[in-house]
Amino acid sequence: MSLTLNYNPDNIFAKIIAGDMPATKIWETDDILAFMDVFPQSDGHCLVVHKKAQAANLLDIDPQALGTLILGVKKVAAAVAAGLKPDGIRIAQFNGSSAGQTVFHLHFHIIPVYDNVPLSAHHGAAQDGPTPADILEPVAQKIVEAL
Amino acid sequence: MSLTLNYNPDNIFAKIIAGDMPATKIWETDDILAFMDVFPQSDGHCLVVHKKAQAANLLDIDPQALGTLILGVKKVAAAVAAGLKPDGIRIAQFNGSSAGQTVFHLHFHIIPVYDNVPLSAHHGAAQDGPTPADILEPVAQKIVEAL
Repeated sequence: MSLTLNYNPDNIFAKIIAGDMPATKIWETDDILAFMDVFPQSDGHCLVVHKKAQAANLLDIDPQALGTLILGVKKVAAAVAAGLKPDGIRIAQFNGSSAGQTVFHLHFHIIPVYDNVPLSAHHGAAQDGPTPADILEPVAQKIVEAL
Repeated sequence: MSLTLNYNPDNIFAKIIAGDMPATKIWETDDILAFMDVFPQSDGHCLVVHKKAQAANLLDIDPQALGTLILGVKKVAAAVAAGLKPDGIRIAQFNGSSAGQTVFHLHFHIIPVYDNVPLSAHHGAAQDGPTPADILEPVAQKIVEAL
């Protein structure tokens, strides 16, 4: 079952963490990295990962690392709320490709919701290619300023 | 904005925690309660709450309580995986009615995903009324046995 797969250190989030792939970063500590999703479902859709815990999904991760990670999610979600003033925020975390997981390094989605603006489909966006950094950067900046 | 509302201790999850409303429980400690969602999006859809932290949403909760809560989510998700053998598991947490939150006591959804079985809409299910306990109980029992 896909829920028990081994961690593959060549996944793209591991490359972003290592600095081998670009990302529009929001917040970074020794343990945590938050960056913009390049296939955003809404303005401000971002991701939070643990940099050191090599866990494919929630079932894999060390409890202490998970505790650190969820506090990072809370911190960045608060900055999304303050910086972008959405009407709501969805937190989502997918385990296994059947659940919609496409990168097998555990990550939490922070998805702002705006009244009367439907969420884009992650897959639909992917058909148009990733969102360029110059589009993501000004949104990220509003979140950074609210951290 | 709905993200900053105050905690209302009369919400239905507070009543479940207090024992004033019934629920099909999966796991309970001094701090954490996991129980079946009565409007399940799939077989085994359950919820995890902190019993003592009076937080409407993620932005509200005390960091230590959040750490305890997410470890409960991980534990129950592992039991869902082992007991029900879904193809994937979605974790979801909604902040604000605009994001789909209907009960304003912070809760994490654990939603098993089965290949070729579409998820039900939470709202769609609600139109048919809550799922009776005798339907939820045998599913809960498989999760309990895997804890």
